[in-house]
Amino acid sequence: MRLGVCWYPEQWPESRWAADVAMMRDAGLELVRIGEFAWNRYEPAREQWDWDWLDRAVEQLHGAGLEVVLGTPTATPPIWLARERPEVLTTASDGSRRQVGSRRHTCPTSPAYREESVRVVAALAERYGTSPAVTTWQVDNEPGNHDSARCWCDACTLAFRGWLRARYATVDDLNEAWGAVFWSQVWPSFDAVELPRPTVTAHNPALELAHRRFASDQVVDALREQVVQLTALSPGRRLLTNHYLGDAVVDCRDVGRLTGLVGHDNYPHGASGPYDVGFRHDLCRGLADGVAPWVVEQQPGPVNWTPTNPPVPPGQVRLWGWQAALHGVETLLFFRWRAARFGQEQYHAGLLRHDATPDRGLAEAVRLGQELRAAAPALLARPPARVAITYAYDDAWALEIDPHLTGMTHRSLVLAAHEAASRCGQDVDVVDPEGDLTAYDVVLAPALHLCTPARVAALTAALDAGVTVVVGPRALVKDDDDAWLDEPLPGGLAARLGARVGDALTEPTGQVAVAPYDVPAGSWTDVYEVHADDVTVLATYDGGWLTGLPAVVRRGGLVATGAASAEVWTALLGDLLGVEPAPRGVEVFWRDGQRVELDWRTLTLEKGT
Amino acid sequence: MRLGVCWYPEQWPESRWAADVAMMRDAGLELVRIGEFAWNRYEPAREQWDWDWLDRAVEQLHGAGLEVVLGTPTATPPIWLARERPEVLTTASDGSRRQVGSRRHTCPTSPAYREESVRVVAALAERYGTSPAVTTWQVDNEPGNHDSARCWCDACTLAFRGWLRARYATVDDLNEAWGAVFWSQVWPSFDAVELPRPTVTAHNPALELAHRRFASDQVVDALREQVVQLTALSPGRRLLTNHYLGDAVVDCRDVGRLTGLVGHDNYPHGASGPYDVGFRHDLCRGLADGVAPWVVEQQPGPVNWTPTNPPVPPGQVRLWGWQAALHGVETLLFFRWRAARFGQEQYHAGLLRHDATPDRGLAEAVRLGQELRAAAPALLARPPARVAITYAYDDAWALEIDPHLTGMTHRSLVLAAHEAASRCGQDVDVVDPEGDLTAYDVVLAPALHLCTPARVAALTAALDAGVTVVVGPRALVKDDDDAWLDEPLPGGLAARLGARVGDALTEPTGQVAVAPYDVPAGSWTDVYEVHADDVTVLATYDGGWLTGLPAVVRRGGLVATGAASAEVWTALLGDLLGVEPAPRGVEVFWRDGQRVELDWRTLTLEKGT
Amino acid sequence: MRLGVCWYPEQWPESRWAADVAMMRDAGLELVRIGEFAWNRYEPAREQWDWDWLDRAVEQLHGAGLEVVLGTPTATPPIWLARERPEVLTTASDGSRRQVGSRRHTCPTSPAYREESVRVVAALAERYGTSPAVTTWQVDNEPGNHDSARCWCDACTLAFRGWLRARYATVDDLNEAWGAVFWSQVWPSFDAVELPRPTVTAHNPALELAHRRFASDQVVDALREQVVQLTALSPGRRLLTNHYLGDAVVDCRDVGRLTGLVGHDNYPHGASGPYDVGFRHDLCRGLADGVAPWVVEQQPGPVNWTPTNPPVPPGQVRLWGWQAALHGVETLLFFRWRAARFGQEQYHAGLLRHDATPDRGLAEAVRLGQELRAAAPALLARPPARVAITYAYDDAWALEIDPHLTGMTHRSLVLAAHEAASRCGQDVDVVDPEGDLTAYDVVLAPALHLCTPARVAALTAALDAGVTVVVGPRALVKDDDDAWLDEPLPGGLAARLGARVGDALTEPTGQVAVAPYDVPAGSWTDVYEVHADDVTVLATYDGGWLTGLPAVVRRGGLVATGAASAEVWTALLGDLLGVEPAPRGVEVFWRDGQRVELDWRTLTLEKGT
Repeated sequence: MRLGVCWYPEQWPESRWAADVAMMRDAGLELVRIGEFAWNRYEPAREQWDWDWLDRAVEQLHGAGLEVVLGTPTATPPIWLARERPEVLTTASDGSRRQVGSRRHTCPTSPAYREESVRVVAALAERYGTSPAVTTWQVDNEPGNHDSARCWCDACTLAFRGWLRARYATVDDLNEAWGAVFWSQVWPSFDAVELPRPTVTAHNPALELAHRRFASDQVVDALREQVVQLTALSPGRRLLTNHYLGDAVVDCRDVGRLTGLVGHDNYPHGASGPYDVGFRHDLCRGLADGVAPWVVEQQPGPVNWTPTNPPVPPGQVRLWGWQAALHGVETLLFFRWRAARFGQEQYHAGLLRHDATPDRGLAEAVRLGQELRAAAPALLARPPARVAITYAYDDAWALEIDPHLTGMTHRSLVLAAHEAASRCGQDVDVVDPEGDLTAYDVVLAPALHLCTPARVAALTAALDAGVTVVVGPRALVKDDDDAWLDEPLPGGLAARLGARVGDALTEPTGQVAVAPYDVPAGSWTDVYEVHADDVTVLATYDGGWLTGLPAVVRRGGLVATGAASAEVWTALLGDLLGVEPAPRGVEVFWRDGQRVELDWRTLTLEKGT
Repeated sequence: MRLGVCWYPEQWPESRWAADVAMMRDAGLELVRIGEFAWNRYEPAREQWDWDWLDRAVEQLHGAGLEVVLGTPTATPPIWLARERPEVLTTASDGSRRQVGSRRHTCPTSPAYREESVRVVAALAERYGTSPAVTTWQVDNEPGNHDSARCWCDACTLAFRGWLRARYATVDDLNEAWGAVFWSQVWPSFDAVELPRPTVTAHNPALELAHRRFASDQVVDALREQVVQLTALSPGRRLLTNHYLGDAVVDCRDVGRLTGLVGHDNYPHGASGPYDVGFRHDLCRGLADGVAPWVVEQQPGPVNWTPTNPPVPPGQVRLWGWQAALHGVETLLFFRWRAARFGQEQYHAGLLRHDATPDRGLAEAVRLGQELRAAAPALLARPPARVAITYAYDDAWALEIDPHLTGMTHRSLVLAAHEAASRCGQDVDVVDPEGDLTAYDVVLAPALHLCTPARVAALTAALDAGVTVVVGPRALVKDDDDAWLDEPLPGGLAARLGARVGDALTEPTGQVAVAPYDVPAGSWTDVYEVHADDVTVLATYDGGWLTGLPAVVRRGGLVATGAASAEVWTALLGDLLGVEPAPRGVEVFWRDGQRVELDWRTLTLEKGT
Repeated sequence: MRLGVCWYPEQWPESRWAADVAMMRDAGLELVRIGEFAWNRYEPAREQWDWDWLDRAVEQLHGAGLEVVLGTPTATPPIWLARERPEVLTTASDGSRRQVGSRRHTCPTSPAYREESVRVVAALAERYGTSPAVTTWQVDNEPGNHDSARCWCDACTLAFRGWLRARYATVDDLNEAWGAVFWSQVWPSFDAVELPRPTVTAHNPALELAHRRFASDQVVDALREQVVQLTALSPGRRLLTNHYLGDAVVDCRDVGRLTGLVGHDNYPHGASGPYDVGFRHDLCRGLADGVAPWVVEQQPGPVNWTPTNPPVPPGQVRLWGWQAALHGVETLLFFRWRAARFGQEQYHAGLLRHDATPDRGLAEAVRLGQELRAAAPALLARPPARVAITYAYDDAWALEIDPHLTGMTHRSLVLAAHEAASRCGQDVDVVDPEGDLTAYDVVLAPALHLCTPARVAALTAALDAGVTVVVGPRALVKDDDDAWLDEPLPGGLAARLGARVGDALTEPTGQVAVAPYDVPAGSWTDVYEVHADDVTVLATYDGGWLTGLPAVVRRGGLVATGAASAEVWTALLGDLLGVEPAPRGVEVFWRDGQRVELDWRTLTLEKGT
């Protein structure tokens, strides 16, 4: 795993650059990302380009042997641009336009925004596209972050109607698919459809889901326009994005298909724990069909943007680096080189402190680099995964729209399964549920909420190929327009399972357990009704009137668990694999026959025998 | 108690109807409510009426011997209508118009909404008003629900000024009554008065109360226009509404005077517990002068709209039915027949599951019907109540506007008294405090906040007639314009009581008790100052510096309790009646000399001796 | 300490006035504040002045020997005025105009508001400026309260740009100072700068700080215009304001420089505890260079505006009075004479109840007056303070804008130091950190966040003069535009300290202690790195990986504490002064060699030996 750093030469006196670059090189860093927020420095006024400073910065980096990752600056259009063309600005659901002063304040649909983005990207790529210093382009920055994909401007309304026209042959089809007869909210024509604006109570979830899908598509389309420019003007360079994978706003798999390489910004303090961090690495690889991912921004110390911004104990930064390496990350850049003296992120640590003295993260970064270079290659070679976890953005959106139980999230369902795999020593591929699943030993589908023919076909093919498939609660419940199926659940698989979901319940008490595992059931509890003889009830509920009812059932290779706590998944997967799971807080990897443990309770890396 | 169900034929393939209707009949159901959300199916575009489908649905129901309750669809005007006449839409306090996509998005004042409502109701009533199948009309659906009565549109502003003109002779009278001199916010003319729009801190509570009263009146006026049509075009049919009694937005007693029959939608998971449910049944009867109420929608399993939507254990649905029967409900319809496949309520249980198989609620509904038909008539005959509880909507609004202690609610005060009666085995009439109270043994006035001459007269007459009257804390404090009295409290009764309120305190610590009951005092603690010799101090406070101060005082038939927890009310009422109250969680009924207990802790119905 | 009361003759029948005035006099009160909300009674319509009633009220008070404090009514412009000139109204950040019906609904910048304010103040001062009854003017009422200083109207936008032009020579200077290059949000010209309107994520803190400073300046300018009128038209009278010191919206030190006398409204139920109340008294004196402050409004019983409005036990009102006297308050007025019958504050206690009978507060006020008059003069003579605490509004704003840890406040930092002084028996001056600090024994700088040359110079001069100076965590971190320094921290003092801040951490766990004090560290933990030999580590952290790291360091007279809990400050100050601190809940004063204790746990005043 190569190490690098994010640097903002435009934020520091040029007299300081040489010292910074020398320190980077001496720290063993190999890459430096620059430029992704510098539009106003590239173009302080329309078409008044100022490249000289960037030429010098790139030159200094290149001269020091550092690769340059150059960012397109489309997350931060300048104020002068928004003043000239205010239609680039995002509009909130109440119709008010978001103003300048921050970032991601522009609408991904806006033709003006698209045009300006292409213009600046083309100018940048013309200047640096064939520079030997620039090996990689970062396209935009954290697309969709701050929930910025959805916009309610006039351009979005028009585009949404077009998007619907492409999806549904007629408005009658739309109304039928959405069940618009419910509460009489039938759209009289495509031209009448409105984005979900403030109303008295909830909107139809079908509209909400369509809006999220549309918004994601708009972001992807905007990125595609940049990719076209970069591909044409900067041949042979790699393209990537830096997603923030803590939320699900944009379908990042669509982005991965565009760029071929995906990175993510790894801020463990914004994650729910180490398993969430590990999951994000695995998800990131899954977004680009297994291409080894990047961490484009790595937390190097405390951050500024969580509610509490807690300290980072010694050793933590190094361990985050090892975690990335063990999850197969190819390149990791720390964010940022030196802590910002001004602006919104002053309390965000850098490798250097504000006064340019080394912060604790720098020493750990140096040590990490030394250790990685010294490590046996096999330790860093991630083997093919035997276990896959399905993940799809539309499931995340559907559950966000209707979680049934406040606080229940798609992510928590997925993480429960991922924790199980981590504790059982399994590398995991995070896969598209419509893809080929036949190569795995076990496929976990912890949150496969929507039921499409392709999903059912993929799972069925896997089962037919001898794969063990485990579905969780609320599996295959609704169709692709977020309408409930009218067949037994899990949809398409109930017959094969020999059981169906009887009750799909919430578990708000925290007092229902699962026997024989003797662990909490989790927040949702699907209760199965068995209708075939050869079904095995692997576990039952234990709590109140649910006691004794089937919680986990199996027939052949198909397993269904109606309880979805991490503890249930861990016990179940341990049983399926014949493995004793590690305690909570430990990640287990097998590398070249050797057991490697990351113990997050003690912040230690242990290489066993 | 007759049983029925709510059905949405427009949401299912017509090929399925016959099977559904047969199942309903076989389940012992007698009535089916339909149509209340189907405006767009009645009239897909202006004046293009489509009755054929409804004709067939009504016919099938009638053919199966099922009575039809037909709903007017005015809670869900179609989108085409809102596009043609956007002035029907509700306006929020910030001046923004609420949009389509949901329900109750229309302003009850809007002349356009009124006109369109009358038009559709007339058309519906012309078609089905004399159908032998249709025995009952539901007027609108949950009027005021989702806090939809208050609107800030121009029509409301104008109408509000007219409403004020009718209430106050001159604007000077208004300013005097409201104490507008406070903070110099004197209205220079009726035409200057504004609805309470966003301002820097709180509005005058007199304005807020007037707005709530006005808004309620507008809803009632809109319903009246429908009632006029239905009465004219559908002679001999019963009219009812289905209120949601979990909040107090519309003065449902006014509605009861219009319709003569009142129903409510009984969702125990939206209630604070079983006593709240029992209270709603009793309130509902009180809204129509004792006419036996309906439950128009009965929760049949888990719902979708509470924060946690917990499971419904076996036996619960049956017991809810028995509770309704024992509280004198005439007719109970389950909501809904089959769980919705689309729209906003997919997680709401029906008697059938989404796939048309029976859900657990159906079996309990069938058993309930069998038990009710088998029960001794005397068990289901509610005797005249000895105990009345006063309830008035303007008290609820005044306390909502200024609760003194965050979280304190009018409902919680009323429920404390109702729990006391339920545990003491008393049937309760929930009565207008300005009505004739002389026929009761005991009148409880747990939240009689506003003091009008008529209220004082009614209580005085009751006392003179030998009734025991118990007032709670904050009783008779403010005048009809929400201004504090300038006489000793409780207003109009302090002299008769021989005591007055000294301190009207909050009790946020939870650590003040009441002796000798040895129970918590509750959230408000009025402390009495006794000024007559023959006053009995029934109980005193016990906690900190309040220890020993009078909490409950009595002189003759008049009792005042300054502590208002359910425990205090229960102990006090037990003493007054000479009854040993049942434990918390139990409702006691006496039917034909027999003690009947609903034990909500064990979900059992016990008929003792 | 003189006692008085706030009275609203305009809210009561004139027939009642004589009785009220006689009761005030008989209660030993000496002053009565009137008029500050009566604009509409002064001027019911434009230029239709009605002074007769006020003439009579003033006359009655004067006749009874009561001094009149007359308030200018500019916090409550009448509705007729807002209708004539709607541009007086405040505009929210979303661009919507706040409406009438409340108070402080006007923009301090609005030229129309300024003009109308001067007009009414001049008319009032012409009428009463030379009245022998009127000894004091209250200018406006709680300026800035309800967060009313910041406004987003067009007048504010224009004035803000002018304010920026005065502060920065060029827009390039502004962009440089603000670090606008961050996220490319560079302002192209002064005319382009916008107030911080709703955007997608946070604004640059430099803009936020500038907005707060600008808004404060606008309020001060508006007050200045009133002061000019009053000084000219009412020679020889004292001018004061009545600040609400529970928040920091306006720089009240600027106001003190205008008026020369400062009062505050003392509502202990809005404070975090008795030390907060004592602090406010001391702060208030500090706002006017040590002139003995007033309490213009004193809580006399329960209030109406906190979330819980708890009871006030017997003895509490008297003790609040004694606390004010011991903190050197000159004059204290209870708010209000009689509880309001109408409007927004009906649950606010007065000295009289709504029905004109005495409330408990009256008896305590009478007793307090008697005790004060009987007290030895030395008991009430506040000696010069040995300890100063620095306080500055821009620090409060900077920490409000970026607290690093949610819930961390400037006030809590300052109160920790003030509690330490109170428990150590120290009178405290709350001082401007840029003033002369050389006269104190100890200067505590618990929240000196911004680093200006004048602050560093003042502290350095104090150190040079032999003063012990203690700085807290996050001391001298950012420059005057809220940008982080690029030198070791504490800025300007790290060299003298022989140590620098290594880590500036949050402490969200509550589990880090400080040894040897054995007390919690508090919410922020700066860890020091010692770089000189003669530094003494007075205390270290004790908790997790922080154990043993320096928490409090000293070199010569300069002490730095990175832990800032009240317990740490108390232990440290006790050590520095060689004093055994009193337990939490006790305030200690030394008067004429005598130890005086206010024990808030038992509500007792003890004069020891």
